[in-house]
Amino acid sequence: MAEGTHFSLQPERYQFTWGPADPLIRVRSGDLVSAQTIDAGCLDCQGRPLSANQRQDCGNTQLLESNPLVGPIWVEDSEPGDMLRIEIKRIEITRDFAWSRHFPRFGCLTCESALGELLLNEPVPDLSYHWQLDRSAGTGTLRLLRSQLQEVQIPLHPFLGSIGVAPRYGRVEPALVPGEFGGNMDCAETCEGAVLYLPVWVRGAYLSFGDVHAAQGDGEICGVALETTANVTLRIGLLKHRLADWPRVENASHLMVIGSARPLIDAVRIAHLDLLKWLVSDYGFDKWEALQLLSQVGIMRVGNVVDPNYSVVAKFPKAYLP
Amino acid sequence: MAEGTHFSLQPERYQFTWGPADPLIRVRSGDLVSAQTIDAGCLDCQGRPLSANQRQDCGNTQLLESNPLVGPIWVEDSEPGDMLRIEIKRIEITRDFAWSRHFPRFGCLTCESALGELLLNEPVPDLSYHWQLDRSAGTGTLRLLRSQLQEVQIPLHPFLGSIGVAPRYGRVEPALVPGEFGGNMDCAETCEGAVLYLPVWVRGAYLSFGDVHAAQGDGEICGVALETTANVTLRIGLLKHRLADWPRVENASHLMVIGSARPLIDAVRIAHLDLLKWLVSDYGFDKWEALQLLSQVGIMRVGNVVDPNYSVVAKFPKAYLP
Amino acid sequence: MAEGTHFSLQPERYQFTWGPADPLIRVRSGDLVSAQTIDAGCLDCQGRPLSANQRQDCGNTQLLESNPLVGPIWVEDSEPGDMLRIEIKRIEITRDFAWSRHFPRFGCLTCESALGELLLNEPVPDLSYHWQLDRSAGTGTLRLLRSQLQEVQIPLHPFLGSIGVAPRYGRVEPALVPGEFGGNMDCAETCEGAVLYLPVWVRGAYLSFGDVHAAQGDGEICGVALETTANVTLRIGLLKHRLADWPRVENASHLMVIGSARPLIDAVRIAHLDLLKWLVSDYGFDKWEALQLLSQVGIMRVGNVVDPNYSVVAKFPKAYLP
Amino acid sequence: MAEGTHFSLQPERYQFTWGPADPLIRVRSGDLVSAQTIDAGCLDCQGRPLSANQRQDCGNTQLLESNPLVGPIWVEDSEPGDMLRIEIKRIEITRDFAWSRHFPRFGCLTCESALGELLLNEPVPDLSYHWQLDRSAGTGTLRLLRSQLQEVQIPLHPFLGSIGVAPRYGRVEPALVPGEFGGNMDCAETCEGAVLYLPVWVRGAYLSFGDVHAAQGDGEICGVALETTANVTLRIGLLKHRLADWPRVENASHLMVIGSARPLIDAVRIAHLDLLKWLVSDYGFDKWEALQLLSQVGIMRVGNVVDPNYSVVAKFPKAYLP
Repeated sequence: MAEGTHFSLQPERYQFTWGPADPLIRVRSGDLVSAQTIDAGCLDCQGRPLSANQRQDCGNTQLLESNPLVGPIWVEDSEPGDMLRIEIKRIEITRDFAWSRHFPRFGCLTCESALGELLLNEPVPDLSYHWQLDRSAGTGTLRLLRSQLQEVQIPLHPFLGSIGVAPRYGRVEPALVPGEFGGNMDCAETCEGAVLYLPVWVRGAYLSFGDVHAAQGDGEICGVALETTANVTLRIGLLKHRLADWPRVENASHLMVIGSARPLIDAVRIAHLDLLKWLVSDYGFDKWEALQLLSQVGIMRVGNVVDPNYSVVAKFPKAYLP
Repeated sequence: MAEGTHFSLQPERYQFTWGPADPLIRVRSGDLVSAQTIDAGCLDCQGRPLSANQRQDCGNTQLLESNPLVGPIWVEDSEPGDMLRIEIKRIEITRDFAWSRHFPRFGCLTCESALGELLLNEPVPDLSYHWQLDRSAGTGTLRLLRSQLQEVQIPLHPFLGSIGVAPRYGRVEPALVPGEFGGNMDCAETCEGAVLYLPVWVRGAYLSFGDVHAAQGDGEICGVALETTANVTLRIGLLKHRLADWPRVENASHLMVIGSARPLIDAVRIAHLDLLKWLVSDYGFDKWEALQLLSQVGIMRVGNVVDPNYSVVAKFPKAYLP
Repeated sequence: MAEGTHFSLQPERYQFTWGPADPLIRVRSGDLVSAQTIDAGCLDCQGRPLSANQRQDCGNTQLLESNPLVGPIWVEDSEPGDMLRIEIKRIEITRDFAWSRHFPRFGCLTCESALGELLLNEPVPDLSYHWQLDRSAGTGTLRLLRSQLQEVQIPLHPFLGSIGVAPRYGRVEPALVPGEFGGNMDCAETCEGAVLYLPVWVRGAYLSFGDVHAAQGDGEICGVALETTANVTLRIGLLKHRLADWPRVENASHLMVIGSARPLIDAVRIAHLDLLKWLVSDYGFDKWEALQLLSQVGIMRVGNVVDPNYSVVAKFPKAYLP
Repeated sequence: MAEGTHFSLQPERYQFTWGPADPLIRVRSGDLVSAQTIDAGCLDCQGRPLSANQRQDCGNTQLLESNPLVGPIWVEDSEPGDMLRIEIKRIEITRDFAWSRHFPRFGCLTCESALGELLLNEPVPDLSYHWQLDRSAGTGTLRLLRSQLQEVQIPLHPFLGSIGVAPRYGRVEPALVPGEFGGNMDCAETCEGAVLYLPVWVRGAYLSFGDVHAAQGDGEICGVALETTANVTLRIGLLKHRLADWPRVENASHLMVIGSARPLIDAVRIAHLDLLKWLVSDYGFDKWEALQLLSQVGIMRVGNVVDPNYSVVAKFPKAYLP
């Protein structure tokens, strides 16, 4: 891929949907884009809230102002049936704290649903957590107030909680949703060094990203990770006439597909079926032999079990490719 | 409710999304609206397909052109927190046939998912069915070709497969989706004589409707009902400051709530929890005594198990109201 | 079916499992069996608890002493591949009250699972309800203490909450489980006048029954119906070489199959697939035409959404049979 | 734990259920047991099928003769409320091959259900795979016949697919089921070096084990791993008055809980909730702070998505314990 232009963006507004909108910028295959992301609660790198005029103007629709996104980015020449090839070059955290929270009716161990209250039980308490980040050491520290342990320090592994394009049909709102367009997958695999392939569903692709997590456990079970801000640099490539129906990720060691759906077993199915397709179409495997091999060496990671769709990553070790 | 204006619409275009758009018409509480719906496959009352310029202009987004809707209708003075009260005055079928179909990867007994192919198995055959409608007798007739029985005649019970407002957040596409805004619930309860209450999420409400089914079994298990066209007349009322989070239906005998979600058990939960809220807030029941009574006399009907969200109707007999 | 012997049983012990055990009695095809059932909480027709020596002796296994069953009944000549044909001749309630209850972690609107506590939320309160039964009027009456309405009276429709045979493999415990053997289906369809067909999985069949509900709403959503005692009379027939994999029910108007599984959508699938098989094998329908017809005229009832497997009844109106 | 007796068993019969039965042996806390397991299809270390008299005598019940188990082992002094502490000392594969298979209606990417056929689609082909094992190199090799790659070699990581005790209530059959008693969890974590804690539900505990997998991918998605035979050595300890409701595993780096249920999200919930309980009861964590920490550092592995219950392992790194 030829060296392209490097765009450095200072977004003046953020968006809260996946889908076509006035592009923030137009890029060509090979261009680099750098931008500052703000956190899932709309706080910037200095902890200041987003002002009203920094919010995407969507006329008279109601927005859930969570997970603000940088974008959309128009990719020249991209058309349905193409794929974006996005190198995640850099995710550099830009502040010294991250927050997390237990919402009363959110998270997979409480009364949750995409849009409603699911149970007769009382909700759990609303609790906030402040994590101190040491960016040079790459650690996050939380003071515990009611436990025997008084402080815990964990390694950071920053990644993009949200990255996606315009969906197959229309627009997906709120931004909290993951799907066939990528979106709020909350999968640690979309980190520095990874290459993400996203199907193009709409001319221009409309790439957006944000919601950097400084760290997160599998499944994001309480519903909120270490929410923070970052400088993100992506190289955006375009692959013509490459068809995939779900987001694919590649790193040094694995081919991966991220499936997002409810119930959870359907996310498992989607991820594995598309991974099998990949092995058959690009690597010369017979469908059933690929199934046999994947069944014995495959790795599955649960990205999230809290968003409106759950996300599962199916992984095939590149060591077994021809 | 005072007698209002009666608008008789001849739609020149149809829409394929739930959400704000240029209103087809603006009505006041009490007004009547009559309009011709076309079928889920965009055939009109003479079996002619929709022309390109009759389709909603949505700029550069991709539409799934299924379930064309009449609307949106702007309801004056409606605001978030209000409820629409819609009397379904008339659903008069306007042609002599309905079609149904078995799609290869659709329906709850095959490899379905909202947006993907879910299984390794081969898909089922794509088969079409032509039902002859006798509107005066109120019957539908299907000729069977490979069965011992050569013809089957069933009673018609026409209803609106789709009716809804703008959703809580933004826009829902494709039109196939049901949710907290109503939408493609495919529930036989939204028939002539019923009163439907829809929460208003966005100023103006943006009511739309369509997808008349001449008949349908519980669950719509093959994925397609008796798809046809109709003249529909609704009286549109506005209730200020009435809060409900899910569509409610009332007829001579029952209070009902329609919950839509995946997995199916969550649709069951949503419908019953909101029905309990209704009993408590409007009819003086204690929450637990309402649960006890609903558990012993409640009726549950499965509307659909094929759409991107499944729909379940929880019903409470009005005979047990104070 | 020839008139058989009429056995009138006074059970001295009750069992809490589905599966082979010392038969209470041995019957031939055509025989009638009458017996007194006790309620799901082991209270008899006078409200007295079961004594220790009236409990099934199961050696050193741990029993959940809920849903006591009359049985097992050995059916002479029955073998795997056969079906029992059970006419439910009579269900006569034998006392003047029924109880119901809200358990803290049971029921589909709370933190339930088959064997565990599923959520971080606090459980709901443990509440009991005493329903007065008027057997001659066929009504149940509940006094409400904290509602505007002070009393509610509902019609009774007694049915067998539990009836089944030995399961396909081994033994199913606790008795609360429904499955391919019938069991604790909690479906109102197994009432007086219905004919139930149960697959025979094990030589002798080992039929058992109990858990009479005086009334129950769809889904039994709080987890407990109007639990009472009854005199039950069944005529037990044997159909040789009739293969079905799930319980079937027939009454004057419908052919029905009861599917039991988790998640709920799988119970929906099982019931409809076996009903389609029945239409094809016994009534000359083509598989796809049967699917089309069932999709348009089928009725689905949710029996329970609270037991370790959920139960769904798929119904086909006999009016459409050849 | 004091050094105990070392029993070396040559089982003359195998069992196919979880639950009380005539003990194969009686051990005391601290004893070692070694035994030869045979494979899930009842082939021994020379590839010979089990003879009829080597099968557990279960009288007139029907068994699914899959997953033969060594056991049950009676543990002296064990009572409900205790826990077994089982050190997996050694799993030594005893033959030079393993088999795998794609069954027509089994595996999470096909029409599966615990006991039935779930879909209208045609089943997938029945295909067998023969893996050559090199025990000294610790590798398995499969010849591919229809792929570009002609052979694939993978590292072995032998583990017990099945290990468990008598269940909470009665008996669980077939042996394919995992649950609160352990059972057929198919989790790679029950390998050499791990310590498994199993709740005792019944006096004597009735420990059984078998179904060694030479290797397996996450989820065992096709339904069958590298099925083989092994010499297994366990040290069996008894912890009095230690209450846990689900199987726990500990190794050098992690505390783990294995939850088994359908749907998959319930297995996720069970595993995480019991892991939180463990952190609170044994390590001085506040419940909510434990949730926050587990949400950020927890690891989740999907053991199987093919058995009658799915199994999920929730893991907490011991590095974060006080």
